[in-house]
Amino acid sequence: MTILLREDTGHIATLTMNAPERLNALSDAMLAALHGAFDQIAQDSSIRAVILRGSGKAFCAGHDLKEMQAGRQSPDGGAAYFKDLFDRCAAMMQRIQSMPQPVIAQVHGIATAAGCQLVATCDLAVASDDTRFGVNGVNIGLFCSTPMVALTRNIHRKAAFEMLTTGRFINTREAQDLGLINRAVHTDALERDAQELAQAIAKKLPSAVKIGKQAFYAQAQMTTAEAYAYTGDVMVQNMLVDDTNEGINAFLEKRDPQWS
Amino acid sequence: MTILLREDTGHIATLTMNAPERLNALSDAMLAALHGAFDQIAQDSSIRAVILRGSGKAFCAGHDLKEMQAGRQSPDGGAAYFKDLFDRCAAMMQRIQSMPQPVIAQVHGIATAAGCQLVATCDLAVASDDTRFGVNGVNIGLFCSTPMVALTRNIHRKAAFEMLTTGRFINTREAQDLGLINRAVHTDALERDAQELAQAIAKKLPSAVKIGKQAFYAQAQMTTAEAYAYTGDVMVQNMLVDDTNEGINAFLEKRDPQWS
Amino acid sequence: MTILLREDTGHIATLTMNAPERLNALSDAMLAALHGAFDQIAQDSSIRAVILRGSGKAFCAGHDLKEMQAGRQSPDGGAAYFKDLFDRCAAMMQRIQSMPQPVIAQVHGIATAAGCQLVATCDLAVASDDTRFGVNGVNIGLFCSTPMVALTRNIHRKAAFEMLTTGRFINTREAQDLGLINRAVHTDALERDAQELAQAIAKKLPSAVKIGKQAFYAQAQMTTAEAYAYTGDVMVQNMLVDDTNEGINAFLEKRDPQWS
Repeated sequence: MTILLREDTGHIATLTMNAPERLNALSDAMLAALHGAFDQIAQDSSIRAVILRGSGKAFCAGHDLKEMQAGRQSPDGGAAYFKDLFDRCAAMMQRIQSMPQPVIAQVHGIATAAGCQLVATCDLAVASDDTRFGVNGVNIGLFCSTPMVALTRNIHRKAAFEMLTTGRFINTREAQDLGLINRAVHTDALERDAQELAQAIAKKLPSAVKIGKQAFYAQAQMTTAEAYAYTGDVMVQNMLVDDTNEGINAFLEKRDPQWS
Repeated sequence: MTILLREDTGHIATLTMNAPERLNALSDAMLAALHGAFDQIAQDSSIRAVILRGSGKAFCAGHDLKEMQAGRQSPDGGAAYFKDLFDRCAAMMQRIQSMPQPVIAQVHGIATAAGCQLVATCDLAVASDDTRFGVNGVNIGLFCSTPMVALTRNIHRKAAFEMLTTGRFINTREAQDLGLINRAVHTDALERDAQELAQAIAKKLPSAVKIGKQAFYAQAQMTTAEAYAYTGDVMVQNMLVDDTNEGINAFLEKRDPQWS
Repeated sequence: MTILLREDTGHIATLTMNAPERLNALSDAMLAALHGAFDQIAQDSSIRAVILRGSGKAFCAGHDLKEMQAGRQSPDGGAAYFKDLFDRCAAMMQRIQSMPQPVIAQVHGIATAAGCQLVATCDLAVASDDTRFGVNGVNIGLFCSTPMVALTRNIHRKAAFEMLTTGRFINTREAQDLGLINRAVHTDALERDAQELAQAIAKKLPSAVKIGKQAFYAQAQMTTAEAYAYTGDVMVQNMLVDDTNEGINAFLEKRDPQWS
């Protein structure tokens, strides 16, 4: 069985994590497949938006604990393997944010631990109202320290601390109120809603979205003055794109743009 | 027609962007007028709070696209002009936060692109319930990279990313829920509400507000330890102001302070 | 009368600020007692969670203004005393976040100025629905610059600026909506709710909570890439704890963990 499915419809690529019997755990194989798929899509100029979803009952339940425990057999007790694992996982997460196309998490069922990190990491997230979100590693003695990096860059401090130290699950409504997801929808409407969001983005000028997504994460880590100096240059770069010239002219002339 | 009107009532200055036929676009002239007015008010110790609003149907619809397109005629295709334009715009925005008096955006109708940036940049914002907010440059191929700097320092990450990449407008209620504005009011009550907010601030000790506003933006860019070291000094400076001594004594003696 | 009471029940320490006639003001004595108690508990491996509350009508009304005014008698007008006071207060606040056990503010009545800072600083906060929160120093000419450090790291920018410059109080519901507290409860349920939260945490593996709390505040001040490099190491450290190995095995074997 292929661990990660890719299906393209028009300018939208849909990636389906496909290890339902393991709740789409982020095993070594799944991490490699995801990273590889994102690398491939990043180079594919026909794709303008990506949907990431899971098959079966869960979106993703986090790391593959059986595989991790097996890693303890090496002479160092697993230290080198664990280090490499968390590095690979963090690299995959950061690849989502460094690729030019927006990535939308289409979430249902369970999004826990590194699965919740995946939701927090995706640029956008839509979830069905049956979803449980948690960073519940603390319940088994493994604090969700890496998921915390993504979570705390999405929601307020006290809510994040509570989720991390109590292991409490939150439902879709709370996730939306906290800012972890963009939209809560009925299960029946989930796929359609994610598609609509992807299509809304796919209609935009890809070069503008690419410029903007890159700048989004870069400027967030700068002081305000640095961010303005940087994004001022980004705006100039964007203005000098021929299709942007056409886009502005079309707007001023009240017609549709003729983009290349 | 004067592009920016200033009217002082007591300790409150009201600035009205006055190019209604262009939806108060941030043209070269408007940017210069705003920056000049903020410079002037910053030096005017009689003013304790500023209200910024727009005449006509909109608060502000962003940059002046006709003027920008005209800038393309130069040999460099407009590159130098665009760079200078975004620098001047960013400098005006930062002037709002560096001036001693709080600036309240009184928003109605339309606040889009750099007009939405203006709302995000003002220290406080009140909006009528008919307002549409957006960072919708992506719709014409120009990602709102500079407005993003202000927006992402006001609201959560996923909501900001959605607004920026879909170009979707949000209404006043959503703007309040997201934290982009302080209050949503009926159109009839907009001016009164902005005035009340300005008057509440104008009643405070100006030296304390000045000290505090400066520290507000400075400490936000520091680590917690740095921020405490810095604001500890700020508190000492504040304590040594004679009027603060009087303010504390008046409170302890349950009487009104006699400020100079 | 002892200014700070400590009562231990199982693995939970409850600290009660006990200067009700002064609304539990953060006097020199109270600051020293709190810092001392946190130091002591930090070394006490039997304690897994801390509840901080106030006796009488208020949680805490901030600094002790009478004591501060008395400090003005020295030749320097109090400058050295004030500097030392704010340094000691900031050190106590930061001690809450640097200690291994989560600290829960159990809030009622009044939480103002440095008392509101205390709520913002605690890792978690539960408040009864009769509470008024404010950073209202501006009302007496002393802008809440040090409380601002904690407040702005908990809630959005515009709401914080409004509270700081208008001195307006917010109620428990607003505090929850803004993210300043975790839960709003009826007065009758306040103690029980804080206890339940503390007990939920006390059931977790202490070493995991300790590792996680330290990482929580450290990674928040890093870039995303730095934060992942750092928390990757933290996860390895956590994985190599024997009790974590047991916790994961117990989960995989669907039994309760046997922690040391």
